[in-house]
Amino acid sequence: MAYDNRDDNLKETYLSGEDIYNGAIMRVQKWEVALPDGKKAEREIVLHHGAAAIVPLDERGYITLVRQHRVAIDEFTWEIPAGKLDYAGEDPLSCAKRELEEETGYKASNWLKLANVVSTPGYCTERISLYLATELTKSEAHPDVDEFLYCKSIPLAQAVSDVLTGKIIDLKSCLGILMAERMLRDLTVPLNATGFYADSGYLHG
Amino acid sequence: MAYDNRDDNLKETYLSGEDIYNGAIMRVQKWEVALPDGKKAEREIVLHHGAAAIVPLDERGYITLVRQHRVAIDEFTWEIPAGKLDYAGEDPLSCAKRELEEETGYKASNWLKLANVVSTPGYCTERISLYLATELTKSEAHPDVDEFLYCKSIPLAQAVSDVLTGKIIDLKSCLGILMAERMLRDLTVPLNATGFYADSGYLHG
Repeated sequence: MAYDNRDDNLKETYLSGEDIYNGAIMRVQKWEVALPDGKKAEREIVLHHGAAAIVPLDERGYITLVRQHRVAIDEFTWEIPAGKLDYAGEDPLSCAKRELEEETGYKASNWLKLANVVSTPGYCTERISLYLATELTKSEAHPDVDEFLYCKSIPLAQAVSDVLTGKIIDLKSCLGILMAERMLRDLTVPLNATGFYADSGYLHG
Repeated sequence: MAYDNRDDNLKETYLSGEDIYNGAIMRVQKWEVALPDGKKAEREIVLHHGAAAIVPLDERGYITLVRQHRVAIDEFTWEIPAGKLDYAGEDPLSCAKRELEEETGYKASNWLKLANVVSTPGYCTERISLYLATELTKSEAHPDVDEFLYCKSIPLAQAVSDVLTGKIIDLKSCLGILMAERMLRDLTVPLNATGFYADSGYLHG
């Protein structure tokens, strides 16, 4: 049990991996790794292409949330629009634009990266790109045939309150909403001007 | 493709499930579900007992973070102390106390529930209970033998900045830090008094 403030003493090295399961949407592997002390250990890892999620904010200060039933937890949730990358390496912004339009019918001409995060790094490779989308124009939603959902728009301040009181429980949605609120509070330039936040700055749609 | 603002039109009904893989820490099942339109579909679901995560805040306003290497994403991360429930139904607060002491050596006599969230409800049953722990006393950390980590304490305001600038990327850590900061800003009673936040209020350690 090395205890030293140097990252070298923490690093697990991937040695080999094999598929345990390769299904329609999920691929699970067992990895053999070398621990920092030289011992070997097994890790069970869910492979995931990654995802994009969007806080769509209109000119009134309302954001649009998606209502879904999540059978894994057997609950109805309010979540920000989101979806998986179609393939490893897909541009997350392209994915975000597609998912926003599919689920809500909105197109946005202003895109701001809020964060790049990892959902569950202990056992899953999933990375999520979070965006704030503004300058919205509405067309028609067209979810996938096996996607059942509806939308509502609420003031961003109400969404923040819903996070704090536990009405919104989806982790990426909670973070996206708090970051969007914080960013708008911190911003000293108007949203449609050139500015920077996190590592990214504005991405024009 | 039902499009109606009633949850009944969204609900997926679990019909049956079978193990695809039942490993050391991960269990994966294939579920057959009935879609709202009566059609059947398959879902691949990771079963997870749940987890607890803790923002440990000392009297100076510093929080303690844990440095780990996460082989799934091949990165070193700064995360709030956290760990899995030992078994389905374990009290998350007991888990939080154990994990805080194991990873950081801290015991806390004041526990505040920040949130109950779900990490990835599209494919995993994991629920995470997030706590703010205060009135800390230090003893010795004793991580599991295959856990390699070290800790640092930084001002909460610095941690918030690290979330906003992308230095902290773990989703539950990002949310815990922003919620802790927001809660302390909103609080009108001292932290060691009786108060309420989210659904829970104070839980005395």
